[in-house]
This record gives sequence, C-alpha cells and structure tokens, in this order.
Amino acid sequence: MRYALGLIPLSVALAYFHAPPLWVFAAAAAAIIPLAQWIRRATEQIANRAGSSIGGLLNVTLGNAAELIVALFVLMTGNTTVVKATITGSIIGNSLLGLGLSIIAGTWKRDRQTFSPQRAGLLASLLILSTIALMLPAMFDYTERAIVSGGTAAILDERLSLGVSIVLILVYAANLFYTLVTHRDVFATDESEETATWSLAKSFGVLAAAVAAVAIEAELVSGALEVTATQIGVSVFFLGIIVLPLVGNAAEYFAAVYFARKNRMDLVMTICLGSSIQIALVTAPVLVLGSYALGRPMNLVFSNPLELMAIVGSAFAVNSIALDGETTWFEGVMLIAVYVLLAMAFLFATPR
Amino acid sequence: MRYALGLIPLSVALAYFHAPPLWVFAAAAAAIIPLAQWIRRATEQIANRAGSSIGGLLNVTLGNAAELIVALFVLMTGNTTVVKATITGSIIGNSLLGLGLSIIAGTWKRDRQTFSPQRAGLLASLLILSTIALMLPAMFDYTERAIVSGGTAAILDERLSLGVSIVLILVYAANLFYTLVTHRDVFATDESEETATWSLAKSFGVLAAAVAAVAIEAELVSGALEVTATQIGVSVFFLGIIVLPLVGNAAEYFAAVYFARKNRMDLVMTICLGSSIQIALVTAPVLVLGSYALGRPMNLVFSNPLELMAIVGSAFAVNSIALDGETTWFEGVMLIAVYVLLAMAFLFATPR
Amino acid sequence: MRYALGLIPLSVALAYFHAPPLWVFAAAAAAIIPLAQWIRRATEQIANRAGSSIGGLLNVTLGNAAELIVALFVLMTGNTTVVKATITGSIIGNSLLGLGLSIIAGTWKRDRQTFSPQRAGLLASLLILSTIALMLPAMFDYTERAIVSGGTAAILDERLSLGVSIVLILVYAANLFYTLVTHRDVFATDESEETATWSLAKSFGVLAAAVAAVAIEAELVSGALEVTATQIGVSVFFLGIIVLPLVGNAAEYFAAVYFARKNRMDLVMTICLGSSIQIALVTAPVLVLGSYALGRPMNLVFSNPLELMAIVGSAFAVNSIALDGETTWFEGVMLIAVYVLLAMAFLFATPR
Repeated sequence: MRYALGLIPLSVALAYFHAPPLWVFAAAAAAIIPLAQWIRRATEQIANRAGSSIGGLLNVTLGNAAELIVALFVLMTGNTTVVKATITGSIIGNSLLGLGLSIIAGTWKRDRQTFSPQRAGLLASLLILSTIALMLPAMFDYTERAIVSGGTAAILDERLSLGVSIVLILVYAANLFYTLVTHRDVFATDESEETATWSLAKSFGVLAAAVAAVAIEAELVSGALEVTATQIGVSVFFLGIIVLPLVGNAAEYFAAVYFARKNRMDLVMTICLGSSIQIALVTAPVLVLGSYALGRPMNLVFSNPLELMAIVGSAFAVNSIALDGETTWFEGVMLIAVYVLLAMAFLFATPR
Repeated sequence: MRYALGLIPLSVALAYFHAPPLWVFAAAAAAIIPLAQWIRRATEQIANRAGSSIGGLLNVTLGNAAELIVALFVLMTGNTTVVKATITGSIIGNSLLGLGLSIIAGTWKRDRQTFSPQRAGLLASLLILSTIALMLPAMFDYTERAIVSGGTAAILDERLSLGVSIVLILVYAANLFYTLVTHRDVFATDESEETATWSLAKSFGVLAAAVAAVAIEAELVSGALEVTATQIGVSVFFLGIIVLPLVGNAAEYFAAVYFARKNRMDLVMTICLGSSIQIALVTAPVLVLGSYALGRPMNLVFSNPLELMAIVGSAFAVNSIALDGETTWFEGVMLIAVYVLLAMAFLFATPR
Repeated sequence: MRYALGLIPLSVALAYFHAPPLWVFAAAAAAIIPLAQWIRRATEQIANRAGSSIGGLLNVTLGNAAELIVALFVLMTGNTTVVKATITGSIIGNSLLGLGLSIIAGTWKRDRQTFSPQRAGLLASLLILSTIALMLPAMFDYTERAIVSGGTAAILDERLSLGVSIVLILVYAANLFYTLVTHRDVFATDESEETATWSLAKSFGVLAAAVAAVAIEAELVSGALEVTATQIGVSVFFLGIIVLPLVGNAAEYFAAVYFARKNRMDLVMTICLGSSIQIALVTAPVLVLGSYALGRPMNLVFSNPLELMAIVGSAFAVNSIALDGETTWFEGVMLIAVYVLLAMAFLFATPR
C-alpha cells in the first residue's frame, strides 16, 4: 500500500509538467485506490477505540469518502451528468461486480457459502427502496415535461430532488438507529480484523492526510476526464459510470474478496450491498444538497433510461440471488454477467 | 363513533346554506370516516350470524363499500382521472401507509412480530398480478397511440379494459373459492372481535342507513372537490390520490393498528394488503363495468406514469418486506418512506 | 402419436394442390405437435445411452429444436418481428400457460405439491437475468434513437445484440457446467421415464426423420402465415406470439402435465421454466447469430412495449409463486390469468 506514496508526487509532477492528460488521469486514478484503503484503515483504527456504535457510524460516514470527494470535484467542473453516472456506477459496481467477484472467490473449492438471510433481506429491502427513490425524480421529470415548459419542470425537479434527498437521509438515520441500537444483536458484525494498534493522533493524522491526498488526486482526475475520454475513444459518461467507480471502490472489492475467502459472507454482503445502499441513501442526497451550497445545482433526475435500467436490474439481480441465504459460484457468474451486459450498453451508447 | 351523527346534519346544513366549499368538503369527508366504520361493524354483525363462508363473502363485498360509493359519485361528475387516482391512492395507501403504521404501532416495545408467510405470500402474489393487470392497459394505450389515431386507440382501450375487468373479477372469485372453501383451514382468521350482539334487523338497518349517509356525504365531497383543491392550493388529482383514500380507508387503518397492537399480524396483513387487492380485483373492475351502465365510460388506462410507478413500487416494497414472515419497526419506516416519496411527487406534480 | 404420419402427407398434399392457405397452415401446425414429441423421444433414447452429462447436454440442445426450426423458416421470410414474437411467446407460454396448466392438473385432488426451492430459485434467477438481457437492447435502442439517426442506432443495436447474444450463450454454458458437473447432485433429475429400448441407429434415424419433417412443416407454416392471419382476422404478430409457440411447445406441455399428475414437480419446473430460459439464453442468441449467417440480420430489440411487459410480467409472476417451494391450484389459476391478460392485449393490438 505504500506505493501510493510514490503515485501522489508522480501524478502531481505529471500534471505540473503538462504531461499528456491520459498519463495524469492514469497516475491519479491509480493513486486513489491505495488512498481509499488508507482512509478505510484509519477509520477502522478510530472505530476500534470508539466503541461499536460510534465506530459503526464512523465507518458508515467515511466508508464512501473517496467516492464522495471524487464526485465533488467532478461536480465543481459542472458536469452533473458524470456525477450522476458515478452514483449509478458505484451502485451497480458494488452490488454486481464487487459481490459477484467475492462470491466466485469465496466459493472457489467450496460447494456453497451461507450468510444470514435476515441481514441480506434488510439490505435487499433497502436496495428496493433506493431504487424507487432514484427512479421517482426521473419519472416525475418525464411526466412533467409532457405538460409544462422545460424551465418550470426544472424548478419542480429541484424541489422534488431536495425532498427525496431529505427523506433518504432520514431513512438512513433510522437504519443506523435500527442496526446500531435497537437490533444491534442481529446486525452486529466484527467488521475489523485488526485491533487498535495506532494511537488516536496517528489515526487522525493518517485520515486527514489521506483525505487531503484524495482531494488532490480527485482534482487531477476530474480535470483530465474530458481529454482522456477522447483519447481512449470512450465517452466521458463511460468513464463516469464504469472507470471512476472502479477506482473509488477498488479498496472495498479487495476487502470483500478477502473476507469471502475467509468464508465471512455476512461481512461481504455488508461491504458490497451496504456500500451500494450508502451511496443511494447518503452520498447521492449529500451531493444534491451540497450542489446547492457549491452553486452548481444538481437534481436527482437520472435522465438516461439505461441508468435507470441498470439500477432496477441490479436491485432485482441481487434480490433473486441473496434471499435464500446461500451462494454458489454460478450466482457470482450471473451477477457479473449482468454487469458485463450493462457495461457493454454503456460502452456502445452515444454520448449526449 | 356517534359523533358521526352530528357531522352528517352539519355537512348537509353547510351545503344547504352555501357555506365555503372547503368547509363542506371537510365536514363531509370527516363524516365518512365513522360511517365507514359503521358499515364495517354492521357487516361483521351479519357475517357472524351467517357462518364464515358467506360472512367472508359479505366482508369482502362490503369491505370497500365507502370507497366504492365515493368513487361512484366522483365518476358521475365525469372526472375519470380522479376516480382512477382514488383507485391508485387506495392501493398505495393501504399497502404502504396503513401497513407501515400498523407495523410501527405493533412493534412498539416489541422486538419483532411474526405472521404466516403462506398467507403473506398469497397476498403478495395477488398484488403482483394486480400490478400486471393495471399496467397492461396503460402499456397497450401507449403502444397503440404510436400506431393508430386517438379515436381508434380509445375504442381498443375500452375493449381491453372490459376484458381485463372480467378476468380480474374471475380471479377474485377463484381466490374466494380458494380461501373460503378449498384451503379454508390455512386462511381462516377469526376476523371479528365481537360476537353477534345485534339483531339481524338492527344490523341491516344500520347497514342501510350508513350506506345511504355515505352516499349523501360522497355527493357533497365530490361536488366540493374542484373548489377545495383550488382553495388549499393542491390539484384535484392530489385530493383524489392522497386525501380521498385516507378518508375512505381511515376506518381500516384504525382496525389494522388496533390488531397490530394485539400482535395479530396475520389479520393486519389481511386487512391492509387484502384491501389493496380487493380494490384492484373488485372495486376497479366494478367501476369500469359500472361506468358503462352510468353512461360515463371509464377505461382502466392509468395514463400518469407516476401512478404506474406508485403501483409497481408499492407492490415491490411490500414483497420485499412481507416474504420473510416477520416485521420490525424499521420495515414500517421503509413502507411509510416510500409512501411519503410518492405523496411528495403527487404534491409537486402539475395538474393536467 | 403415429397420426403424425398421416398429417405430414396431408399438409404437403394440401400445399401441392393449392388448397386454401388456412388449411395448409392448420394441417402443418397440427403435424408439428407430434413431430416435436418424436424429437423429444429420440433425444431421450440417445441420452439414456450416453450417460447423464452428455445426455443432459443433448436434451438441452434438442429440447427446443422444433421451435428453433420454425423460427428459422420464419426468419428466412424476412419477418423478424414475427421471429421475435415467437421468442416472447415461447417464454411466456412455457412459464405461464405450461406451468399454470401443469399446476392445476397436478393439484387436482391434492391439497398442495412441493418441489425443491433450490432448483426453482436457480430457475427464477435465470429468468430475471434473461429478462434484463432481453430488455437491455430495447432500452438501448429507445435511448439511442432520441440522440442519433435511425441508421446509426441500427448499427449500434446490432453491435449490442451480438454482444448480448455471446454473453447469454456463455452464461448458459456456465449453467450447464454448474448443473451437470459441479453441482450435479443438487440438480440431478431422472428426467426420462423410459429406459433405452431403441437401438442407437433407430434413435438417430427417428431424430433425423423428425427434424426433416418439422423443417418441411415449418416451411409450410411460415409460407401460409400472412394469408392465414388475414383470413381468421388476427394479426401475423398474434399468430407469432400465441399460436406458433403453442404448436412448438405443445409436446412439452403434455409432458409437464403428465409429470405434474405423477407429483414430480421438480421435473415440471425444469421442463416449463427450463424451456423458457433455454429460449432466452440459447434459442434467441442462436437466431441472432444465425440471422447474420443467413443474410437476414435480426437484432435483439423487442420494440413492442407490450412484449417487454409480457417478459417482465411473467418473470415476476413466476418468481412470486415459485419461491416458497410449493404450489396450490390457485397459483396455477393466477399464472393462467396473467397469460390470458397478455394474450388479450396481443389480440386487440393493431398490427404495425
């Protein structure tokens, strides 16, 4: 993980000396992967000292920190379509690709793996709720644009998006209260492998440094986005929906695969599906609310039908394999197949 | 409940002396709530004497009597969009708001509540079938309008709506035969708390009087609908999809919450989901068939995409929480959150 | 079954002497039913000698041979809309009508029937995956046509359709490896009733003769399609989506009903749902790939929204009844009701 220390100056130097944007993009994106892992580790160290409730809260708040920072920097370039694409991409990436890879890795030389259907059921329900919440503004927009002018529709979209964002954050707060307080016994997982070996000062120091470094890299990535897309012959949208989420979530995929090999599938479910849910219920609303503070207003209207299809499809794919409380390698293959199908459609899609 | 006796003359007097329509609407709507409860009670008294099969049939036939009467009066004003809105509103109100409130009330100071997954599975399957049946005419209409003229499409819509209505009523009849005859042991619930204490004459008298009074109030409500909407600054559609179903179903919500507190969740499921299904499988088709008899033809085309989204969304939300055979408070919160999201979209939507 | 021998010369004679196309259509369609059954039987005879893995593979490859041959002949007339309609029609016919009839037949004088939820869960998951895969090209096409010209969209559609086809075939191959090799013990069924009584030579002879005869009849059917539709007053699309799949799958329905009466519901699920999945995962992709070889390019875009609705609706209807591991007669009624609703919409739909 320490190679991150090398990638940071490299990417900055490349940008400083006006190297080809593709190189800057690649170096900065590569640097984010281990940095996200450092944020994860520092958070766990603090969480270990803080006790499980506050620790859980911390893990939750900082779990998608890297993705959030990248999305914020893209948002500041004004490209809201790509920001939304990273939201969709993180949801489908975690619940299809991340979970699919973990299941295949975990069932290697195992007949099947089991997990608590109760926890998976909760996660699946939250995924359905997230899906409804993310579809609603798009359906609303579609309906309104057939009746009123685009300007009026945009104002109404904004109002609904803010309302939906607030409801989602409240649901997430209720979910935390549910899993960390009232039904803590059912949902408790000993998520961390490590014991608290760092001092609090070191933990906070690493956390602050890693967040700052991610911010630098995120700025480099978002600045090089357009040119990189042109150079490698894909759309910015494709970078946003497939490549950026891979970068932001790679640390989580490694963790999920690691725990899958150790046959701790409850934890794998929490990491993969929990992360998807957190993006829908926390990251997306925070980006909407933050976009107004930043003066770059973004609504929650996912206007690309393929994006909606991706969110709905992954919710149902996960539901259909997660509810029986066990996984086999073929279920992993099915999840990845759905991801590949969607990625193919995004690859062929014409940029708008 | 006896305060209804005061609300009836009050609402009639307000209408007679040309009081502001908002007052008439409020008084008449308020009067319907206890009247629906009287219909419920009288039906139960007759059902208790009649034996469980005919009693079940009676409960079923009269269970949504208040809503049906209100919908018929709105239909006679020719506003078929609002009639359809009350159908959608009753379905989502019962299965999201009614069930959600009951679950929260029931799990207060309880860890979890259980119910028969078999019964919930049947109800969930019927909800999926209802959803398919209600989406089909809209998809058909959408498809046809791209090919033929509006007039031709309207004729085809009508034919399909009548066909769908007949199939739905047949499915409901089969469902009654299934739950009351062939698989009675599985689905038997002792729904009534009370024993038959009224004479048959009294029961029929109360039933007739309550139905007549509901008809009067329904006429007042439907007459004051337009002006009330304008005055309180919402659309008639919003009144139809959120307010009228609350009025028509409040009695059921009280009953469901009451039984949830008593930990009789099977009965709660039957009241909330059963009522939604009954609206889709009986009330809606009866309104369609009746609309031709009344000379105010109404098809089953739910042309507002948000309405379809509401029906589909509530079916999946219910499915995802009902299939495991147990409920916790957070599941209630999720159902209500979906309801609030939908209500918000309907509130912001521009009337067409 | 031997009456097929009479229907073949009859249909050929009718065609030769230029009898009314309706007669030719009826005779040729009627001849296909027993011929499909002969293919089934010969395949089973060979499979019995070949051992279960290769036997399973054989059953799978030849299971939808009759439908594939009919579809190929329709494809050669250039009517890709009808070919796609037969794909949709086979999927919904097998999983709604075939399974529904089997459940009703099987539960006659039985309270309920049970089956392995594990197998049904796999089939239901594959049905969800098939649904996503078949919806994706249509959503892609819809999205693209709003941005680029029809010609460009058609090229992109083609690329995506080929990509999707290859992924589906790979998923199916993985599924075979899963059910026939790694998890063979879970999914093994003794599908055949009969022991190998035919010599290999006889088996291959019957197989070749039946396939050749189906090809002849398929050509007669596809040639008489247009005129027959006009004469009986339905659209060619309706013949493709309702009538042709009944003809091609009737042999399977008979087998499914037969095994349902014998209370072997696992086998019934495999026949009905397995056949639907095979059509989505093998027949459809093979037709797409084959269409390029035949110079009659066909993509996977199901442009009729009603067709998509039918596929999605049947996937959810099956999911909602199959996951609990038991069936009652009412579940059969619900499946058939959904089929009737869809068939009605296709009947009323204006040909495009």
